[in-house]
Order: sequence, then C-alpha cells, then structure tokens
Amino acid sequence: MTGSRLLGNKRSIIILSALLATGFYSFALGAGTGDSAAGETGILEILLELVVILLAAKLGGDLFERLGLPPVLGELVLGIVIGNLRLVGVPVFDSFARSITLEILAELGVIILLFQVGLESTVAEMRKVGATAFLVALFGVIAPFFLGWGVSIWFLPEESEYVHAFIGATLCATSVGITARVLKDLNKTSTREAQIILGAAVIDDIMGLIILSVVTGIIAAAAHATGGGISLLGVGWIISKSVIFIGAALIVGIFVLPHYFRFALRLRGTGVFLSFCLLVCFGLAYISGKIGLAPIVGAFAAGLILDKVQYQDLKEREGHDIEELIAPIAVFLVPIFFVRMGTLVDLTTFGKVEILGFAAVLTFAAIIGKQACSLAVFDRTTNRLAIGLGMIPRGEVGLIFAGIGASLMLDGHPVVSPETYSAVIIMVIVTTLVTPPLLKWSLQRGERRLKRTGQRNAKSSA
Amino acid sequence: MTGSRLLGNKRSIIILSALLATGFYSFALGAGTGDSAAGETGILEILLELVVILLAAKLGGDLFERLGLPPVLGELVLGIVIGNLRLVGVPVFDSFARSITLEILAELGVIILLFQVGLESTVAEMRKVGATAFLVALFGVIAPFFLGWGVSIWFLPEESEYVHAFIGATLCATSVGITARVLKDLNKTSTREAQIILGAAVIDDIMGLIILSVVTGIIAAAAHATGGGISLLGVGWIISKSVIFIGAALIVGIFVLPHYFRFALRLRGTGVFLSFCLLVCFGLAYISGKIGLAPIVGAFAAGLILDKVQYQDLKEREGHDIEELIAPIAVFLVPIFFVRMGTLVDLTTFGKVEILGFAAVLTFAAIIGKQACSLAVFDRTTNRLAIGLGMIPRGEVGLIFAGIGASLMLDGHPVVSPETYSAVIIMVIVTTLVTPPLLKWSLQRGERRLKRTGQRNAKSSA
Repeated sequence: MTGSRLLGNKRSIIILSALLATGFYSFALGAGTGDSAAGETGILEILLELVVILLAAKLGGDLFERLGLPPVLGELVLGIVIGNLRLVGVPVFDSFARSITLEILAELGVIILLFQVGLESTVAEMRKVGATAFLVALFGVIAPFFLGWGVSIWFLPEESEYVHAFIGATLCATSVGITARVLKDLNKTSTREAQIILGAAVIDDIMGLIILSVVTGIIAAAAHATGGGISLLGVGWIISKSVIFIGAALIVGIFVLPHYFRFALRLRGTGVFLSFCLLVCFGLAYISGKIGLAPIVGAFAAGLILDKVQYQDLKEREGHDIEELIAPIAVFLVPIFFVRMGTLVDLTTFGKVEILGFAAVLTFAAIIGKQACSLAVFDRTTNRLAIGLGMIPRGEVGLIFAGIGASLMLDGHPVVSPETYSAVIIMVIVTTLVTPPLLKWSLQRGERRLKRTGQRNAKSSA
Repeated sequence: MTGSRLLGNKRSIIILSALLATGFYSFALGAGTGDSAAGETGILEILLELVVILLAAKLGGDLFERLGLPPVLGELVLGIVIGNLRLVGVPVFDSFARSITLEILAELGVIILLFQVGLESTVAEMRKVGATAFLVALFGVIAPFFLGWGVSIWFLPEESEYVHAFIGATLCATSVGITARVLKDLNKTSTREAQIILGAAVIDDIMGLIILSVVTGIIAAAAHATGGGISLLGVGWIISKSVIFIGAALIVGIFVLPHYFRFALRLRGTGVFLSFCLLVCFGLAYISGKIGLAPIVGAFAAGLILDKVQYQDLKEREGHDIEELIAPIAVFLVPIFFVRMGTLVDLTTFGKVEILGFAAVLTFAAIIGKQACSLAVFDRTTNRLAIGLGMIPRGEVGLIFAGIGASLMLDGHPVVSPETYSAVIIMVIVTTLVTPPLLKWSLQRGERRLKRTGQRNAKSSA
C-alpha cells in the first residue's frame, strides 16, 4: 500500500514534470511563431506568466513551509530563480520584467494584500493594545530608520539624502508572520510579550506607511521641482496629508459607510457585498495615490475602517464574510507580486563584494535597530529581549517599499538601484531566517529563569 | 420608523452621489495633473476604471434585475452609457477603450466565466441529457449559422465570406440564463421541456465554441497566407484540431488530473486547491490559444474535465469547493468584460437606418433560426414550440464572439466592424427581451390545452 502510494506520488511528479517540460516550455520557446489570431498575443503571454507564477508560488511556498520558513520567502526565492534563468542560458522568462500588465496585476495584488492586513486589524483593537505597543512600535521605527539612513550615507556617499531616507524607510516595518508562527509553535500566543509584539507590528505598519508616504512624496516633489532638498515645510505638508487622509478615512468609516452599505443592501443581484467592499478598497487606494500618497496606504485604510457593524445585514444575506470573499482573490493576485519581486533581483549583483558588504551592514542595522523596542517596555517582569527579537523580521512591507523605490525615478535613475534592491532582499531574507532560533532561545531562557525564581520563592515560603 | 428609514435611504443615495460627483469625477478630470510619483499613473488609471466598472455593473445589474431582466444586460447597457458619455460632452471615460491592461483583465474575466460555465456541466451529465438534447442543439446551431450567413451576404455584399461566417457564428450559442429564470418563476424547471432546453444549451455552447474555433482559425490562416478563401481542407484541419484538443483534454481529465491533484495534496501552504484549479484553467486556455483555438475554449474544457472525484481530498482539506472559490474572482473580473463590451458600442451607429435594418433582420434570423430546434423533437406530447422559444436568447457567448471578431484583423480592418458590432449587441438585447413573454405565453397555452384534453378524456371515460 505504502509502496504503491509512493510509486503513485513519484509517477505524479514525473507526469507533472513531463507536462511542464514538453508543454509549456516548448510553447514558451515557440512564442510568437504560432498562427494565433492577432490581438491574442497579449492574453496568451499573460496566461503563460500566470501559470509559471502560480506554480512557482505554490512549489516555493511548500518548500519553505517544510523548512519552517514563511511561504512568502519561497515565492520570492523561486521568483529569483525564474528571473535569473537566463544566467544559465535559459532566457525564457525575460518577458516577466517587461510586461506592464503583469506589473499592474502585481500592484493590484499588493493592494489586495494591504486591504487584507487592514481587515485583520480594527480601530477598536488598536486602541486596546495600548500605550506600550505604541511606544514599542515608535522606538522600533525611529531607530532602524536613522540607522538605515546612516548605513546608506556610509556605503552610498554619492547618493542624495532622498536615497538615504528611502533606505531608512525600508527598514521600518516589522513582518510579524514568522514571529506569530514561532510564538504559536511554542504555545505562547497569549503571553504579554506576544500581545505587545503583535500590537506593535500593526502600529508600525501604519507608521511605516506614513514614513513611506513622506519619503515618496518628497521625492516626487523633488522630481517635479528640481533642487531644494528635504525641507521641513515639505515634510510637514506630507505628514499633514497623511494624517488628514487617515483621519478622513476614519470619519468616512463612522459616518458614511453605514449608509453606503445600507444602500448596497437595497441592490439586487449577486456579489453586491464583495463588489462594494472592493469599491472602498480601490476607491481609497485611488484617492491616496491621487493626493501623492502610495495606493497601498488607501487600501490599508479601507481594510481598517471596514467593520462588521456596518455590513452585518449584507454579510448575512450573502452568506460569507469579507475575509472569506477576499481570500480567493488574494490567492490569485498576491503571489504575482512576490514572485515578480523575485524576478527583479539580479543575481549577478550578489557576486559583488561591496554589495554583500552593504547588505551585511544593512541587515545588522535592521536587527540592532529593533532592539530599541525593548527600551520602550518599562515593566521589568516582561521578557524585553524577546520583544526586541520578535520585532526583527522584515517581510512584505520591506519588499513593497523596495519595489516602489525601484520604480521611483529621480534625475533619470531609480531611487533604489538594482544593487540596493538586492541588498534589501538579502536583508529581508536574513532577518526572517535568524528570528526563529533567537526568539526560541530567548523565550526558553526566560522560562527557565522564571522557573528558578518560582522555585526560590517556593523554597523561601516553605 | 419607515419615515426615518426612507430618509436614511434617500440620504445614503445623496451621500453616494455626492461622493461620486465630488470625488471621482473631479479626480478623473484632473487625471495626469497630480503630483503622484512616476510609474504610478498606470495603476491609478486602472483603479479608477475598476471603481467605475464595479459600480456600473452593480447599479446596472440591480436595475435590470428589478425589471425582470438578466443582470448581464444591465452591465452591458451601463457600459454603453459610460462609453458614450462623450456624446453629451463628458469625455471622462474615453481611456476605457484604449487601456490594454483593462482589455487583458476583461479577457481574464471571460476566461474565468467560461471556466465557471464548464464547471457547471460535467461529462457524465452531458451524456445523460441524451440524443434529443443533442439533436435540438445541432438543429439550433446549424439553422441560425446559415441564416446569419445569408443575412450578412444580403446586407454586407462587399464583405468576404469570412465576415459572413463570423456573423453566422455569433448567432449560434443560446444563453439559457433568462430561460432558466422564466422556467423557475413558472415552477417548470423539472418538466421535460426544461431538461431538453437546459441540456441543449450546454451542448450548443460547445458546438458554438467549435464553430468559433473553425471560423477564427480560418480567418487567422487567411490573414497570414493571403487569398484562397475557405477551403474544405482548412475547415477539416481546424475541426480536427478542436476535436483532438477536446479529446486530449478529456483524456487528461481521466488519467492525469487524479495524479495532479494527488501531487497538490502533498503540498503545504494555503490556497493550493484554488491555485491548482486556476493552473488547469489558465494552462488549457493558453494551450488552446497557442494551437489557434480561442483561449475560452480551453477554459471551458478545463471546467468540464475538473471533477469532484479528482480533488475530493484536497477540497476537504481546504474546506471550500472550487465553485465557491472561483465565485469571488468572477465577481471581480467578469463585470469588467461586460461593461467594457458596452463601452465599445458606438451609439452614433444606432442612428443609421441601414444599421437598424441590419440589426432587425439579424434579430429576426436569430429568432427564426432557433425554431428549427422544435423540428428535432419527435415526441408529440412535448411542447415543441416552447423549446424553440426557450432557445431564442443570445447572451454572453454571442457578446464574446462579437468581441473576438472586433479584435480580429483581416486586410487591415476588423472582421466585425463597429456597425456590425452594434447590430450584434441589438440582437443580443432584443432576443433576451422577447423571450420571457413568448415563453410564458407558450407554456400557459400548452397547460390550458393539456387541461382541456384531460377534461375531454375525463368526460369520455365517464
């Protein structure tokens, strides 16, 4: 039985590989020579890219899941493989980086992702995690930002302060997924440390988005009106815009959305609920992009202000909650973003010593920077080291920032150069890899210490 | 209570309108003048288009649902409104027709739609509806095809036989949605007439796709190698390709897919089930496009060959069935196709008498052609007229064919000209509008006749 099952499995892999090898590969190589009708080439190219991306995402995700690492890193790494196949003489997937439609699908993917992240956190919840989480987030954003700025000045002295600020921004946001996983594996999700880390991660997402808005806004302004540098007035104006936007979104959430969903409830037809949620997401993403913030800021704000109270009736009519409805769209679109992020990595840059050096120091700054978080915890019974270590991983948001930087042009060249992009990717991968062992060690040490203190207390009371 | 509720509703509409008017409209007019970062314009344009399309689709769908008409017509009609706003001096949405990304999103939408249609019908089910449904479908495809061809020769004598064949093809496929709705409203879904109509509609979808493949294949071949006309050899070759493709897909479904899903079952991570179903859909759509058939043929075949038996374990692991997972993606993407189809209609063509004449005769041919269906029913106790009337509506598939025709180029101009496109749209709308009253009348007449016969039989036996 086991033998035949193994055989079946092996055969299935062989069949799959054969299908892939004979099918898509030969088609891909023959692209453009077929007798397909005119106007169909665009859709065929996208279909092939989607097949490759979805397959790579699932295979990469599986591989990394087995290694105990977040699947998103697997998607990224297989993207790197796909994007660099030309280095071994297989230039099949070079169209990926050029395809504008794929780029827009990837951007829709990241908008859906930030909408999901926003949905996971509500305004009320954020108020609950309280002052400690806020301070932890604040310290954990400021320290890495300026450390990153400093590293950038050191390694890229010829670049402008815009570039330094951007590199600082990529170090800000914690990706709490891997930490949450480690905490869950150790059965520690309900501890005070866990709650502070998870709360702070949500808040530093928002702070990161504001910093991104400020930095991109300044760079966009600089690209239009030449010269001037970073002015206090400019920074103030963009911070105001961000705060006004998020404030306006919160007001819309309280006063307009209940009416909006009551209107939607009166509409007949299928898919009204999902469509009206997507309208909020795309609408706010559009507006935030239009006023000079990143579209993802709007998508996150949309997720944040959507609340069960507003759409309870509509949800009950259609039978599924918004998280459930948005998940399949995310399964389809989000991997496009991460695999494509991977394809943009140029592996030849990894061979340059100065880039590896830059990446190493940047990673060091990212790790040390987040240890400032422990300074924000005044309660001495809390495992402060564990909080600092739990905040180390950078992930989705760092990648998103790097991607935006790579597409921002200043004086005719991208703010985040291919070399810097590679260094940021290395930083994201390494910070994610080091967290599980460090966090496990710190939590278990804390436990042993607690046990010793407990034994001593028990002795003295006996 | 009712008063305040009404007020609330009215207020919600006012707020919504105000939001729309002040928000998106002014943004749309100001497009390109903002200080948004470079490289962001593409995604902002798409976000605005998605907002307009999703809102139009839901409002149009609601309106037509209230009128007892299929929502898809509402999406189409609001698309026509959006696309022709420039006629009243509001050229806000002119970018819709030019946007390549929107075109590809629309094509992905129609691929997802045909995948859904394919999922609804299984091979076993098609075998069950039997010979009558097959004959009904066959008669109902052949008669409109040649009638359409004839009408095209009459009205467009200067056009080549390719154009005639294409116009014939747009008349083939029944859109059974509106008929199913009427049957359901009259509580007749389980009658023999209903089963024949529903079965035949599935089969004529496939026949329509094969005809489309043949016609587009011939046109593509003609576009490459000039001259020659429609040769028997060419037709034979493309029919063979279609039959081989569908045959190969069926074999893949039986022998490869069980192994494929067993392989998928071994992968860890979320969204594996949906991703692997999408891989089949996109993969077959790609292959069918690559061998010169339409990508939607592959998407339909993918839906057809996917079967619960293959993925039962995977479905149970992830908790949702594929229909449930694909539905949100369809809610997002499918309206893009229909609203965009509407925007491509040039309302000024509706003012030309010769086009209205062409549309009228084409519609007449579409209605009369399907009456051939009743000839395929030999059983005299069946309401044969009702079957012919129930097969009248053309919908999604006709629109899809018209869209493909509009993008197919031959000798430097599209096979389906803007004028012909308008005529096809009119045909689709009118055939859908006339069906409900005609079908209701025929079914109720049949019922009265049956009652009279019953009374007479009762009298004579008394």
